[in-house]
Amino acid sequence: MTHPSQPIWYDMAEMEFRPKLDHAVEVPLYRQLYEQIGQQIRSGQIPKGERLPATRELAGQLGLNRTTVSAAYELLETEGLISGQVGRGSFVTGGAAGRVDWPSVLERVDGTHTAPGSWSRDVISFAVSRPSRELFPLDDFRTSAQAVLSRADLPDILQLGSPAGYEPLRRYLIEEARRQHLAAPGDDVLVTNGCQQAMDLIGRVLLRPGDNVAVEDPIYPGLKNLLTGMGAQLCGVPVGQDGMDAAALERVLERDRPRFVVVTSNFQNPTGLTLSIAGRRAILDAAGRAGVPVIENDSYGELRYSGEPQAAMKQLDDRGGTVLLRSFSKISFPGLRVGWALGPKPLMDRLRAAKEATDLHTDQLSQAVLLEFAESGRLAAHRARVLKAGAERLAATLDACRDWLPAGSRWTRPEGGMNVWVRLPEPLDAGELLARAQRAGVAYLPGKFFAVGRFDATALRLSFAGLAPEEIRRGLEILGTLAKAELETAQSRFEPSPAMV
Amino acid sequence: MTHPSQPIWYDMAEMEFRPKLDHAVEVPLYRQLYEQIGQQIRSGQIPKGERLPATRELAGQLGLNRTTVSAAYELLETEGLISGQVGRGSFVTGGAAGRVDWPSVLERVDGTHTAPGSWSRDVISFAVSRPSRELFPLDDFRTSAQAVLSRADLPDILQLGSPAGYEPLRRYLIEEARRQHLAAPGDDVLVTNGCQQAMDLIGRVLLRPGDNVAVEDPIYPGLKNLLTGMGAQLCGVPVGQDGMDAAALERVLERDRPRFVVVTSNFQNPTGLTLSIAGRRAILDAAGRAGVPVIENDSYGELRYSGEPQAAMKQLDDRGGTVLLRSFSKISFPGLRVGWALGPKPLMDRLRAAKEATDLHTDQLSQAVLLEFAESGRLAAHRARVLKAGAERLAATLDACRDWLPAGSRWTRPEGGMNVWVRLPEPLDAGELLARAQRAGVAYLPGKFFAVGRFDATALRLSFAGLAPEEIRRGLEILGTLAKAELETAQSRFEPSPAMV
Repeated sequence: MTHPSQPIWYDMAEMEFRPKLDHAVEVPLYRQLYEQIGQQIRSGQIPKGERLPATRELAGQLGLNRTTVSAAYELLETEGLISGQVGRGSFVTGGAAGRVDWPSVLERVDGTHTAPGSWSRDVISFAVSRPSRELFPLDDFRTSAQAVLSRADLPDILQLGSPAGYEPLRRYLIEEARRQHLAAPGDDVLVTNGCQQAMDLIGRVLLRPGDNVAVEDPIYPGLKNLLTGMGAQLCGVPVGQDGMDAAALERVLERDRPRFVVVTSNFQNPTGLTLSIAGRRAILDAAGRAGVPVIENDSYGELRYSGEPQAAMKQLDDRGGTVLLRSFSKISFPGLRVGWALGPKPLMDRLRAAKEATDLHTDQLSQAVLLEFAESGRLAAHRARVLKAGAERLAATLDACRDWLPAGSRWTRPEGGMNVWVRLPEPLDAGELLARAQRAGVAYLPGKFFAVGRFDATALRLSFAGLAPEEIRRGLEILGTLAKAELETAQSRFEPSPAMV
Repeated sequence: MTHPSQPIWYDMAEMEFRPKLDHAVEVPLYRQLYEQIGQQIRSGQIPKGERLPATRELAGQLGLNRTTVSAAYELLETEGLISGQVGRGSFVTGGAAGRVDWPSVLERVDGTHTAPGSWSRDVISFAVSRPSRELFPLDDFRTSAQAVLSRADLPDILQLGSPAGYEPLRRYLIEEARRQHLAAPGDDVLVTNGCQQAMDLIGRVLLRPGDNVAVEDPIYPGLKNLLTGMGAQLCGVPVGQDGMDAAALERVLERDRPRFVVVTSNFQNPTGLTLSIAGRRAILDAAGRAGVPVIENDSYGELRYSGEPQAAMKQLDDRGGTVLLRSFSKISFPGLRVGWALGPKPLMDRLRAAKEATDLHTDQLSQAVLLEFAESGRLAAHRARVLKAGAERLAATLDACRDWLPAGSRWTRPEGGMNVWVRLPEPLDAGELLARAQRAGVAYLPGKFFAVGRFDATALRLSFAGLAPEEIRRGLEILGTLAKAELETAQSRFEPSPAMV
């Protein structure tokens, strides 16, 4: 990017600097020096590893004050272009223009869409489906971790482990699955870095680019991005009050021949809705008849605040076609990445091989700590507190929706989980509203992040589990007030203008 | 799989069992009952969820002793087909034959080859390239973990984190990279689940099925399996005394146009050899001219036992085309899966998006503990002990090769790392020898697991780092003695038979 008429003022043979400094212009001399040296480094004319002249030396050469040179060097160092070493001078540490052209190397790869997730601290964010930081039972966690640190098998935990998972955790999970009548004979368990990696491994093993996959519509961005990133085509199946629409799935199975179906049995993300027993059976029947595996995505299943628990699809399936995905993330500590898949051994063997290729195995310290947390009964105690808090937060959300959202708004009434799905009255656009909401102090994810097919511009997801009831009420007051004002403006725009008489 | 002539002895409508028990045959009655009920469950004729008759009731119906029925039920329960609940009877928990045919669902997917890795405890195993369990500094690890548990930011560690990595660890790694003159301006760090996942993410972002990738030949199975599993074609570049052969790479770059080159700069796995400075520069030049990125795989770099450290390729590269992969696994605790990639931001942004899709982020507990382990100076203290032990183990390996391997054997003389590459004299076949070696109490990985192109049947890898010097000597004594005996037998077979006079 060097301008052709510009003299090469740095000459490796002569080791001399000849910058063109202009004392007349308003740009300070240290800044001119900094810019010229920086450009030469970036263009590769001053190679990496080269030592720059000492500040005193260069100041003398250029007839400048030494502090001018020092200031220029300091800026170069801040930018990471040079590095000063006491007593040895300053060295060029980087910056040469790449002959490896990353944009062109990356160009043929499709962009991925990352949902906005982080907002400033004072924004009430309904945007992330995660547990409440305030509810973490820190002392119980510490006790569990301490217990692991005192164990005789600590060296085994620290050593390279098995792709299938930390064996004591695997045994615990298999026994739990048997106790809950989830495990069929010949089933196996694979420990993964949360449900997300279980989905990823399933995709790797079962999908080839261009394959179809049936998923709920709307669905959470993590699954959408993962599957489309693998080159899969998503076939959206509408979600109704009773969860995924089995009749619609049947049509998709016939028309699109998907490789597999991903079904959220409980408290679907984003709608919060739960699949009825009849729906579960109908989906299992339809998928079974088509010979298509069902991936039962159940990371929220343990978070039921009211109503009767439903039998897992894994339990209802007498065809051996279901893989159940569960996780410790939503019910305990999402920063520890431990989930698992339960399913027929032939598939689990392939998933294990894919797991080994991907990252050898799941972190063993967290596997051991979570096992101790669960086996000691501390997980159950924590869950009881989480269920109580979750019920309050869900109630606060539903009440505040009723109290603050504009007339004509509709929202789901989940019995658990972390999310409520809201539809604002038309012509409100939840995506357009977001920027104003953020300025007013509220964040959420608009419907477009969840849409598989045609999307409802009025929709948005409220992830309530991470917020205290008073934050939920305040947040919905802000959002509702804003939406009402917006609606009035919109309606006034649509009113016919009075005749000009 | 029900035989058509067999009566359906269980009828849901009648809820009656009519097993055909033969009192004449030698098979005990409880066993006959168990087999028939089991078969009906597996074939789906007794559906999942069904309650079996109480033992007393069925015994009465069939004219059997109640203990006979109990014994049959016990076997069914052991096999996971039924589950007894106190006071409620026994329920069918699984077993119906799948209408989802897993072998056919999986059929089109290529098999992956997993290297044999686990041997019984009394075998001296040179098969796994991992640190010594006995050297783990358990107290220092405990102190580091305790420190993390007492930290004020523990809730942040337990909460959902950033795909880029735990921010304090990222800052530490970036500063370290700057201090070591590895970071170029605009570089970024991504924390991954060890180097293996960094390679996986790079493959996901840069590769499409059918693409070529240049790698060292021989190369470790983890990389081979990962890349071929993604549908890549491996172009092997021979490894000489000075590491990857730059002239051969140049030909591969021209002929095969690989998407990227994976180079192990230090103590290559499996050969243990290190790339010379001239080789590093030549490879950077060749790749740079071709506009092809270099992935510098450097998980062993910190394990230098003798000789002078060489500048990293990342440091020598003034084209911004190198991504450096490093890890805590080999130098500390491989059971904690934390590694990182350092490279140009445009690529790192894509890797981070792929990381988020794959498994959201790396486990934060281990990131925090390893950061504390490093920042406290305990990692450096541990490293000093590991280097001392490694030097002894490497020396023991090289001495024992000299003392015990048959004449004509050749082996590499690494200056660090965990592996020595051995070539036995012809016509010995290291793969064939393995079964006998295992019976004699020694295990290793034969050359075929590492071959990219044509492979040397006489080659094998000795991973010495996990073994004590006396185990190394004993193991090589066993292996050498066996190889010598084998060689004599082979040579006697090749000797011309004396004329029958």
